[in-house]
Amino acid sequence: MPYYIGDVIRDDKRLVARTPEKFRESGIDVRLQTRVDDIDADEQVVRLSDGTILAYDILVFGTGTTPFVPAIPGIDLEGVFVLKKLSDALHIKSYLKEKQCRKALIVGAGFIGMEMTEALRGLGIETQIVHRGTVPVNRWDPELSSVILEELSRREVPFLTRMEIQSIERGRDYHLRLNTNKGELEADLILLALGIRPDVTLAREVGLTIGRTGAIQVNFSQQTSREGIYAVGDCCEAFHRVSKKWVHVPLGDIANKQGRVAGRNISGRPMTFPGIVGAQSFGIFNLELAATGINEREAVESGFHPVSSITWGNALAGPMPNQKKVGLKLMADRSTGRLLGAQAVGETGVVSRINTLSVALWSGLGIDEIGYLDLAYAPPFGGAWDVIHIAAQALMRKM
Amino acid sequence: MPYYIGDVIRDDKRLVARTPEKFRESGIDVRLQTRVDDIDADEQVVRLSDGTILAYDILVFGTGTTPFVPAIPGIDLEGVFVLKKLSDALHIKSYLKEKQCRKALIVGAGFIGMEMTEALRGLGIETQIVHRGTVPVNRWDPELSSVILEELSRREVPFLTRMEIQSIERGRDYHLRLNTNKGELEADLILLALGIRPDVTLAREVGLTIGRTGAIQVNFSQQTSREGIYAVGDCCEAFHRVSKKWVHVPLGDIANKQGRVAGRNISGRPMTFPGIVGAQSFGIFNLELAATGINEREAVESGFHPVSSITWGNALAGPMPNQKKVGLKLMADRSTGRLLGAQAVGETGVVSRINTLSVALWSGLGIDEIGYLDLAYAPPFGGAWDVIHIAAQALMRKM
Repeated sequence: MPYYIGDVIRDDKRLVARTPEKFRESGIDVRLQTRVDDIDADEQVVRLSDGTILAYDILVFGTGTTPFVPAIPGIDLEGVFVLKKLSDALHIKSYLKEKQCRKALIVGAGFIGMEMTEALRGLGIETQIVHRGTVPVNRWDPELSSVILEELSRREVPFLTRMEIQSIERGRDYHLRLNTNKGELEADLILLALGIRPDVTLAREVGLTIGRTGAIQVNFSQQTSREGIYAVGDCCEAFHRVSKKWVHVPLGDIANKQGRVAGRNISGRPMTFPGIVGAQSFGIFNLELAATGINEREAVESGFHPVSSITWGNALAGPMPNQKKVGLKLMADRSTGRLLGAQAVGETGVVSRINTLSVALWSGLGIDEIGYLDLAYAPPFGGAWDVIHIAAQALMRKM
Repeated sequence: MPYYIGDVIRDDKRLVARTPEKFRESGIDVRLQTRVDDIDADEQVVRLSDGTILAYDILVFGTGTTPFVPAIPGIDLEGVFVLKKLSDALHIKSYLKEKQCRKALIVGAGFIGMEMTEALRGLGIETQIVHRGTVPVNRWDPELSSVILEELSRREVPFLTRMEIQSIERGRDYHLRLNTNKGELEADLILLALGIRPDVTLAREVGLTIGRTGAIQVNFSQQTSREGIYAVGDCCEAFHRVSKKWVHVPLGDIANKQGRVAGRNISGRPMTFPGIVGAQSFGIFNLELAATGINEREAVESGFHPVSSITWGNALAGPMPNQKKVGLKLMADRSTGRLLGAQAVGETGVVSRINTLSVALWSGLGIDEIGYLDLAYAPPFGGAWDVIHIAAQALMRKM
């Protein structure tokens, strides 16, 4: 009988409603709020924290990630949260209500920090972002990510830069006080959004090989270094089709695909995971940000010869009303002419362009071809020369 | 000195403002409202209708298309229009105002008919569509294009099917009357949007080879069958990368690209046009429609073995508010597994998906790879499994 051991089934109402009993009827033993304390891979048994021992033929690691929490005083105070699991979200929601929170501090300026800023601001809560660096979301180059700063200021969200957090204590005017290198800040809620690490504690204990990224090493069938043990999702690596390296990109869509690949192989219908190109996106207020491929640093590390250029174009055809700007940065390899990466920001049409370019990366297209790609032109959706064409031609002229 | 001979420069305010005199200063002799009566390709001269004779080394055909106008009585009455040139649009605009038009008939249900329906309805003019067939825009299969019928009925635009137009005369209650196989209809304006034919009159006279599509035959450098004569845009053919046939797809973005390819070759910087995949789109009211690749009939004609499937998915991630449906039809070749074509309809995210799939077609991707493409996932822009993935996997199961 297959076992599923975990925290919750998933944050989908229909699935949560399907109780463990229901799953057992269909032959799946689901154990929620259950911890695995120990795995004996030689004996092929798992020991749960309640002492139960379960035997297995095939074991799948889907241990995900652990949020990074700095070891500063006061980190355990009520009102200090991370956002990793469904239960975290539920706790934040009930805390906001109970304490009638008026003000929140977001520590960190990655995806979670940005998305939670929008969510809290949407509830009418005064929100500030406390960031170690100077611009948010370092997956994007500052020329593009700085557009977020304008949007934050329009939404009255202060973005405090070069901040080092030192300790948390009870506050005077609000529930909590955050002490930093630049003085104290008070708020009712502090969200720590400082990034995540692959959760490989159990994997190390079993002796699975850990890749140079710190995540579990897998092959194209999602098999780990030990026979009969698979790994999928945020706890393991994935093959990057552009850098040709095994990388750790913990995103939900990749996890879903790897899960299905492992499932197919386990059930005897062979399948390989074709890898990723690093496509990602998020929205904050009216902005879309999306990126794909590798960045300049990764390109140089991989031995490519990156040349890049930024184009500010139109999301729609020139004369359309409600015109929106799109900033698109393309990077290609000077020696082969191949696209290496793309980043974009704007109010609309951003994810659309990056998805189009993701397939170009997937297929290894050259920047010359990208300048003449056949795209579905109509004035409400883009120009006869789309911003993709214009950006590719601008980059070609630099090469 | 390069000559440009034509009707207008283009419908871009900045360019029209650059008068022929301005062009002459930069060494380009622009002659507007000028007709070429005759070309002597042996002598390499062009004779204008005013008798002027211009010599050339290189000649470029950009003669575009002619709208199809049926030979029925009353076709020349005031208030009967086609929409091909900027001047047509200006005439329609001033006629609408002068005659205080209350009602319009659109004859034909292609791109122009659909876009003009939205434009006229937007002006508060009662609008009816008179169509020979039963569903609009035959580039899309009826399962998808029938969604337009719901949108038209929501906008109170009657869509009259299986109509044969017989004659036009002066009306009683409105300026004009259209007599059809199903009785008479009255309106102040009748727009004929019955399709276009490549304008190859002059090309035939010069003896240029005309392709089997009826458009001027060109090679990858946009050269015609006669040395020194190029052709670009809607009057000539383009290479289809999926069917590997030379086709006639008269769209503005293709014309733009061909123009630039010809210009590069003429100016001694060699370039070839990489061809098209048939990407196209239009909007009508709240709907987006887009398609790419070839359709079932073209696939069979080309010797492929098409299998297709339609998926109705979400434009955004499952739990998002304001969810919109996207209908996506994919078709692949049973023998090779390669994608052959895609069509989509919905309120948002349609052109985006078709552009992504256009690059997949451009690169010759198989449907198995399309089911696992790495796209930029975030809930506001799509699910972890995008409708593209779901549709590709549904199609894989049928193959």
